[in-house]
Amino acid sequence: MELWFTEKQTSALQLSCRVKEVILHKESAHQEIAVLDTEPFGKTLALDGFIQVTLLDEYIYHEMIAHVPMVTHGDPRNVLIIGGGDGGSVREVLKHPGVEEVILVEIDSEVIEVCRRYFPETARFLDDPRVKVYTEDGREYLNHRPGEYDVIIVDSTEPTGPAAALFSRDFFRVSFRGLRENGVMVSQTESPFYNRSLLHSSCAYTRELFPCCLVYMAPVPSYPGGLWSFTLGSKSSHPCGDEVKSRAARVENCGYYSPEVHVSSFNLSPPFLT
Amino acid sequence: MELWFTEKQTSALQLSCRVKEVILHKESAHQEIAVLDTEPFGKTLALDGFIQVTLLDEYIYHEMIAHVPMVTHGDPRNVLIIGGGDGGSVREVLKHPGVEEVILVEIDSEVIEVCRRYFPETARFLDDPRVKVYTEDGREYLNHRPGEYDVIIVDSTEPTGPAAALFSRDFFRVSFRGLRENGVMVSQTESPFYNRSLLHSSCAYTRELFPCCLVYMAPVPSYPGGLWSFTLGSKSSHPCGDEVKSRAARVENCGYYSPEVHVSSFNLSPPFLT
Repeated sequence: MELWFTEKQTSALQLSCRVKEVILHKESAHQEIAVLDTEPFGKTLALDGFIQVTLLDEYIYHEMIAHVPMVTHGDPRNVLIIGGGDGGSVREVLKHPGVEEVILVEIDSEVIEVCRRYFPETARFLDDPRVKVYTEDGREYLNHRPGEYDVIIVDSTEPTGPAAALFSRDFFRVSFRGLRENGVMVSQTESPFYNRSLLHSSCAYTRELFPCCLVYMAPVPSYPGGLWSFTLGSKSSHPCGDEVKSRAARVENCGYYSPEVHVSSFNLSPPFLT
Repeated sequence: MELWFTEKQTSALQLSCRVKEVILHKESAHQEIAVLDTEPFGKTLALDGFIQVTLLDEYIYHEMIAHVPMVTHGDPRNVLIIGGGDGGSVREVLKHPGVEEVILVEIDSEVIEVCRRYFPETARFLDDPRVKVYTEDGREYLNHRPGEYDVIIVDSTEPTGPAAALFSRDFFRVSFRGLRENGVMVSQTESPFYNRSLLHSSCAYTRELFPCCLVYMAPVPSYPGGLWSFTLGSKSSHPCGDEVKSRAARVENCGYYSPEVHVSSFNLSPPFLT
């Protein structure tokens, strides 16, 4: 038998990968959860039919969503991650020795349970004593905590599912207010080729609030178009400032992130934004 | 009716896009040629079932395969393109005002005819008076012309079709010999995720011959994995040398290529090669 998983990336574009085994398939209160062993990507988490995590390339996505804002800030101690129930962003944040507390707010407790069971590569870092996990709505959590965080990482699913509110102007405002005075925020903002309007609106909301807003990109072959955008807002430090390269060089055990990648990833964006 | 084109990117990975119209579908002496109007990519050329050119992203591929070696050389006058019957690489090479002659050697005359008819966006540049088009085997052509070219661009199809010989050690040797003493060669070397062995062997062959061999990357969403590799060999100039940025700034009318992109595209490769 040939078994194929097909992701409907847009109404006119589909990616299909051969499946060795359907490890889990269930409905949570928020979304459809599937854990697949796929031939091209290895173990794969799909939510509502969209690939979120694969063992082939999750390190690129997680290193880039975490280290770029962390290094831009320079001395982050309190970090908030919205979404990211797989734990990959937590793993990367914990590579920064100055971090005192990581709060993960994931709306779907079943995503966390599934990842703890099937993705120890990322989810075991949720058990680190510096990490606190809350299963509630990210906007609600953040709304009551102004000025508490050095870095906020919005590691969400697609804007069509439970994460829709995380791409609203209101949520960017709440995040800005949740940051300390030198705070840095980053959001995953989808494909620059296939969801340019979301990237544009996220940039516009970030620019209204932060003195510095820049977009950077990373290759993630299991995601639509293979190139992923991240929108960064910084209250103070410039993400490509003079000290960034030496700070980036201190981040260890990365497969993709490096000082050169940090700076170069910002140079890939302008053409897609014009 | 829903019509979908499916590219078998690997034995376990397929990309499918909705087709508005099958404009042309024929067999040449060398391969199957299809021209499709697709929803996500616009007009699309597929050879043997693999997407070669789409109006969405051909500019990224062609700018990157042409300008990086041209700017690295600094003063290219005689340029040889192997493959590239669509004319996109020719279009980009002609943006360099010092170019005196561009030789295009495409094995399949029907690809050129089809592109002249359906892809004027790229193929009309084949009519430029500085361009000579030959329809023959690229290796044979080059074998009789030692030391004639400043830049050789190997703009081939997949290694499974008529282009297989263009990825052999022998062909890299013939190309090296075809270059002048400051010559620069570049080959498209497929996906760094899904065809790493081809990238490795191409690098090895290039390194055996050229004092400088470097790989650079560009995002091409219609190609497998969305990230494409190019392997560059240079007899003299370093592709990220001091003068490169000012030379790159003189290349006009680009949608993706820029001085920053030129340098950054080399920084995306090391992790994939280790």
